[in-house]
Amino acid sequence: MRPPRAVAFGGGHGLAAALAAWRELTPDVTAVVTVADDGGSSGRIRRELPVLPPGDLRMALTALAGSGEREQGLAALLQHRLGGSGGLAGHSVGNLVLTGLVELHGGDTVQALDELAGLLGARGRVLPMADVPLDLVARVEPVDREDHTQVRTIRGQVAIATTPGRVRQIRLSPSDPPVNPAVLEAIAAADVISLGPGSWYTSVLPHLLVPQLRAALAAAAAKVVVVLNLEPQPGETDGFSPEEHVTVLQAHLGGVPLHSVIADADSVVDRRGLLSAVRSCGAELVLASVAELDGAPRHDPVRLSAALASVVGRR
Amino acid sequence: MRPPRAVAFGGGHGLAAALAAWRELTPDVTAVVTVADDGGSSGRIRRELPVLPPGDLRMALTALAGSGEREQGLAALLQHRLGGSGGLAGHSVGNLVLTGLVELHGGDTVQALDELAGLLGARGRVLPMADVPLDLVARVEPVDREDHTQVRTIRGQVAIATTPGRVRQIRLSPSDPPVNPAVLEAIAAADVISLGPGSWYTSVLPHLLVPQLRAALAAAAAKVVVVLNLEPQPGETDGFSPEEHVTVLQAHLGGVPLHSVIADADSVVDRRGLLSAVRSCGAELVLASVAELDGAPRHDPVRLSAALASVVGRR
Repeated sequence: MRPPRAVAFGGGHGLAAALAAWRELTPDVTAVVTVADDGGSSGRIRRELPVLPPGDLRMALTALAGSGEREQGLAALLQHRLGGSGGLAGHSVGNLVLTGLVELHGGDTVQALDELAGLLGARGRVLPMADVPLDLVARVEPVDREDHTQVRTIRGQVAIATTPGRVRQIRLSPSDPPVNPAVLEAIAAADVISLGPGSWYTSVLPHLLVPQLRAALAAAAAKVVVVLNLEPQPGETDGFSPEEHVTVLQAHLGGVPLHSVIADADSVVDRRGLLSAVRSCGAELVLASVAELDGAPRHDPVRLSAALASVVGRR
Repeated sequence: MRPPRAVAFGGGHGLAAALAAWRELTPDVTAVVTVADDGGSSGRIRRELPVLPPGDLRMALTALAGSGEREQGLAALLQHRLGGSGGLAGHSVGNLVLTGLVELHGGDTVQALDELAGLLGARGRVLPMADVPLDLVARVEPVDREDHTQVRTIRGQVAIATTPGRVRQIRLSPSDPPVNPAVLEAIAAADVISLGPGSWYTSVLPHLLVPQLRAALAAAAAKVVVVLNLEPQPGETDGFSPEEHVTVLQAHLGGVPLHSVIADADSVVDRRGLLSAVRSCGAELVLASVAELDGAPRHDPVRLSAALASVVGRR
């Protein structure tokens, strides 16, 4: 039997965790990565040069890097951040390398990503969720729900993540960005597509806000599986339970059918509430122990891959 | 017969030309590279971070890169300079990569160079001429020799190269910098050591000003061969004939025995004058056609390698 064709939607450390799990199962995984980061090294680069913010793309590439000594050495270099206190301080080497490759290829991000994937001996492919840099725009309410006067509009991923309170609504600017044909082809050919884990409003839901991606997902034959976070994200989902994550997701699905929702068996308090929320999306709940054994709030690649395999194997 | 062990002293495009020639002859070449650049990307990096100026090192590495598609692609990326008009503009990607690698290895430049050489599939090795960044200090006289009042002290490679006039004297700061043991070992093991071509005062002579390097050269069993430039360098050697280059070199030899001087047969006007200057260094003159066939003032790698081979083959 051929290995499954997987597509992983996400960004940041959450996507890296999903990719670490997928690479245990299949060599055929395509990461579709958020391009809305406006902070740190990526933010400085996108303000300075006409390129996509490279940080999430770089992190996804290194998560797929080959396991050889040279490939892992290159991955460590790309993840390294320059020191000092000048203009270069804090830039990740990989962000600068990817930016240089995009320039070298006349702005062709996909060609640059494929070339860097080749140098890394990457198992799989990394693509941007849109061909232009995106801005997130959120309506954020204070944690104290009594105080309805303070709902504010916040623009930019960093501002959203650092504004205290809960995101109520999120939109993209531009609202209908162009999507690379390679992304649409990967979705159409996929057997399984994962959303999350990751920052719910800034790394997971944005994909569902892109009309072309949502249409491609709705038309896809693939099983769509959601991987829930292990704990709430401060500034975004303070106090959100797993079932509230699912309810927020449902509000953004827009016709995309969900197959399964994977939740960590040890993180869920209200199993019945979560089951009810998952069922109201028409999906199946997969409760499994997917967290690191040391108690850190991170997904363990091998345990998560076992849960993903069980989804792939189901009808 | 084993291929000759070669060491090439120099910097910048001149060293790259010598390395392109050496790699035609032997896989065993060690570049010993100037670390006195204070301009452009390298200058900004050395002012911002405690590293050697990376530019000449990066150029030497790419000159030795393997000929495979992936290796040449990586070399092109490392040579690429970032665009825009912000803080990153003009930085060569390779300078940033090498800087990141040095940081990643706790300041060990040689380990970083060896690792980048590995990624490039480099044929040979690249080492810095000193373990600390150097500054050049020059006494520059106006081109009009009547005007003796205007001899000035100029500090820094860029300032020296851009000050009109001729360099009369050059020194290093610090004057006795530490030299990596790997450099001294390469010199002791060499069959042949080349100086030049390149900017005479800023890329070729500085090596002879480092006491440890001069002592190692004087004690070496290797043939020392000088490759003369094809034309004078504006700001450094305006109006210098090939024989004047040799005379200036002789003043800096300090006991280092010269075996041969290679000059382009088609660039030399006064053959007798040059022969006399070369003989007064105790060396042999090798007149050969070593320039590019298209008339560009650059050494042709294959033609220069033939001239170097003839020196290696002589007693």
